[in-house]
Amino acid sequence: MKKEAGIVLDVNHLMSDVVGAQYGISREMVADREAQARAAHRAVQKARGTGWLGWTELPYNQGEILAEIEKTAEWVRGRFENFVVLGIGGSALGPIAVQQALNHLRYNELPARQRKGPRLYVEDNIDPERMLALLDVIDTRKTCFNVVTKSGATAETMSQYLIISRLLQEKAGEGWQEHMIATTDREKGNLIRLAKKEGFRHFFVPSSVGGRFSELSPVGLLPAAVCGIDIRELLKGAAAMDARCREEDPWKNPALLEAVLQVIAMEEMGVNVLVMMPYADSLKYMADWFCQLWAESLGKNVTRKGMAVNVGQTPVKSLGVTDQHSQLQLYTEGPYDKIVTFLRVGAFREDADIPHGCEEFPDVAFLGGKTLGQLLDAEFKGTQYALLRAGRMSQTLLLPVVSAHTVGQLLYFFMMATAYAGELMDIDAFNQPGVEESKIASYAVLGNDAEKYRKKQEEMAGQPEGSAAYRLG
Amino acid sequence: MKKEAGIVLDVNHLMSDVVGAQYGISREMVADREAQARAAHRAVQKARGTGWLGWTELPYNQGEILAEIEKTAEWVRGRFENFVVLGIGGSALGPIAVQQALNHLRYNELPARQRKGPRLYVEDNIDPERMLALLDVIDTRKTCFNVVTKSGATAETMSQYLIISRLLQEKAGEGWQEHMIATTDREKGNLIRLAKKEGFRHFFVPSSVGGRFSELSPVGLLPAAVCGIDIRELLKGAAAMDARCREEDPWKNPALLEAVLQVIAMEEMGVNVLVMMPYADSLKYMADWFCQLWAESLGKNVTRKGMAVNVGQTPVKSLGVTDQHSQLQLYTEGPYDKIVTFLRVGAFREDADIPHGCEEFPDVAFLGGKTLGQLLDAEFKGTQYALLRAGRMSQTLLLPVVSAHTVGQLLYFFMMATAYAGELMDIDAFNQPGVEESKIASYAVLGNDAEKYRKKQEEMAGQPEGSAAYRLG
Repeated sequence: MKKEAGIVLDVNHLMSDVVGAQYGISREMVADREAQARAAHRAVQKARGTGWLGWTELPYNQGEILAEIEKTAEWVRGRFENFVVLGIGGSALGPIAVQQALNHLRYNELPARQRKGPRLYVEDNIDPERMLALLDVIDTRKTCFNVVTKSGATAETMSQYLIISRLLQEKAGEGWQEHMIATTDREKGNLIRLAKKEGFRHFFVPSSVGGRFSELSPVGLLPAAVCGIDIRELLKGAAAMDARCREEDPWKNPALLEAVLQVIAMEEMGVNVLVMMPYADSLKYMADWFCQLWAESLGKNVTRKGMAVNVGQTPVKSLGVTDQHSQLQLYTEGPYDKIVTFLRVGAFREDADIPHGCEEFPDVAFLGGKTLGQLLDAEFKGTQYALLRAGRMSQTLLLPVVSAHTVGQLLYFFMMATAYAGELMDIDAFNQPGVEESKIASYAVLGNDAEKYRKKQEEMAGQPEGSAAYRLG
Repeated sequence: MKKEAGIVLDVNHLMSDVVGAQYGISREMVADREAQARAAHRAVQKARGTGWLGWTELPYNQGEILAEIEKTAEWVRGRFENFVVLGIGGSALGPIAVQQALNHLRYNELPARQRKGPRLYVEDNIDPERMLALLDVIDTRKTCFNVVTKSGATAETMSQYLIISRLLQEKAGEGWQEHMIATTDREKGNLIRLAKKEGFRHFFVPSSVGGRFSELSPVGLLPAAVCGIDIRELLKGAAAMDARCREEDPWKNPALLEAVLQVIAMEEMGVNVLVMMPYADSLKYMADWFCQLWAESLGKNVTRKGMAVNVGQTPVKSLGVTDQHSQLQLYTEGPYDKIVTFLRVGAFREDADIPHGCEEFPDVAFLGGKTLGQLLDAEFKGTQYALLRAGRMSQTLLLPVVSAHTVGQLLYFFMMATAYAGELMDIDAFNQPGVEESKIASYAVLGNDAEKYRKKQEEMAGQPEGSAAYRLG
């Protein structure tokens, strides 16, 4: 059995003995947090698999489910030209990130014989122009829809369901239920009842797995398998990272170290922006997935010593080298309020030679004979160095290659770091109470007449309109 | 002549008499800045068209150029299946944003007869896997490449040029030069010399227009025209916004008001994050374009009273309603360090009915009979209201419709607001000195042996490697 290479966390450029005493985190600051870190580790380990920590066990306990997913995926591949995920938030961001990482970067544009499965669309918005644009380019009779909502009550996803199920009844006629696969809670909510009533194929999201921690459950595994991704390798990678996160010493446990350093930066240094900057298009949407995980888990209103405190870093998605031409000016010269996390790839799966030419222009000619991969990595090093010189904190996660195994490691690393950070910050990393108000107000606007929405309608009606002077145009 | 509707800037939810005295900006704070605002306005107006302010005149002085662009666009449409922009930063973000705003949301996937022009690809990175993926799906013999670099020395773009020009010579043979259009400086740099030597069609970026202010120059207008977008309407929209920005009173000049409010938030309230959140997929990449403009222009290291000060908000791109399920938790409960700017659309160009169904589930059934557009707008209102209730600042730019005219207004609005903000902050909004170090270090890594790179190589070689203990894995 070949030994898969592990991803490397390099925090040198966060540390004061590298980036400068006035800018970085010292060993002593980490030492001061060590007891707290060990306690956080023990708390997470003790709660594994329980409460909202069901995701810790996803690398291990899905034997029969995997076989069922693979069987269904094969059936989908044999029968459909398109596979459309109807989901939002955690139901969408993981599938998008994993597809981008592990399949051809223009997968949907390849002819069918060059693809490992049907075209994949992930529809995570309700913009009507977007929905109609999709329907312009797919034949619903040749399309399988995967409706993903744990609660079965997500308004966006269920609206899409109402539209698509009506359309399928019209276009596909008898047997339209074959075009629909539900991924939802085993017992609770509307979707499982609908699935059983209509006879949809269905998969379960374990009740102990929240949306943003669900990529390694059927939520993420089914779309990945449909597109020919090796989901067993993904889980093996996650298990390999889990094994590395069993250590109590933060200097031996990468996710624990990551959490300790970010919490120090947040709480002791006022670093409230975390830039996620992959240097690879394949990892571009990993940043989007991470941004949900970090923002929803750690952005919280908490009470400390009787005082309301508002915590959480703002995650920012970026892309190397592209955003060197967009954001780097701010990162090197703007406020000292950010950490840049680079995702670096050791070896690209393919490289492109830059031919010699333009010999009359030395600043172009010297590029000849290099490869694009070399140019990209040189720019990574240049950017890392420029940040260092400017006294800016950065860190690097090196993926030796981008594979199902290293992507599995990466997903698990960030989930574990998030859980540890929640413990260190003494917050609940697994809820999202701050989105409830928006949802209730939306339903009130839409005229839902259940009592709580009626009350909200009255409350909103009492809200002053604001001043016309503050409205220009 | 029909009167095109103007976009509306609504800042009610930034103001203390709406969002709460402890959270918002008061009329008095704005009044205190009024003299400064008037001076900033006069400075910008006085410098119009000169120095780096050439972009202010792009709505007016391009008569002959427009005709040439339209002629070339028609020629491209008649001859090529694909149009590929090779460019990065300002050469890419504007074309992407305008295409997404004004063409079908799955334009490239439509059959040729349903498109107004060739497929459009904007290649703004040097990831080798991405370049090879593009070459897997296009036939270079049927493709026109638009190389865009004002300096002619952008390493990323010129590497792409070397690869593509070699490939064209091999595949298209004689006449390969017809496949290449250069957009560059009229006199300076390599690309204009190359274009003249090889006989490429070419367009000029005025020397007084910087990359991030170039969308209304041939940089943006050619790709737009090729894809059938009405570039004259785009410029008319910009001119209409310019007319609204001739007022010296910030309460009558939307871009000036925007700049004053953001600078107050930055300098007096420590608001260092600006979230750009369109509620429309068509405006999704307008956020990317804006993020470059705001970050590179205002993220600066300046000297004030002999002290180095680091200024600039971090712009964050977001998308409604999608990111309600990803970032809203942080926006409502996290630190009070952000302003959310909503882009709202008055009327979608198409809407989709949600059929009745699921009558047994009241929280789904009530959606039946609504449209997706209504649901989306209700969610916008719900989110706006939830932020208000949580004492969070937001503002809204309403586009009555998304059209070439309103998009032109929007582009010009943000460019003018950026110029005003630069004046108010007393910084140079038009340079980007902070990216130079990264570029030199990259060239040094790549082994360029010009003297300054050799010196940088020595400097970098003297840099300690860091500690192995800070590297896990």
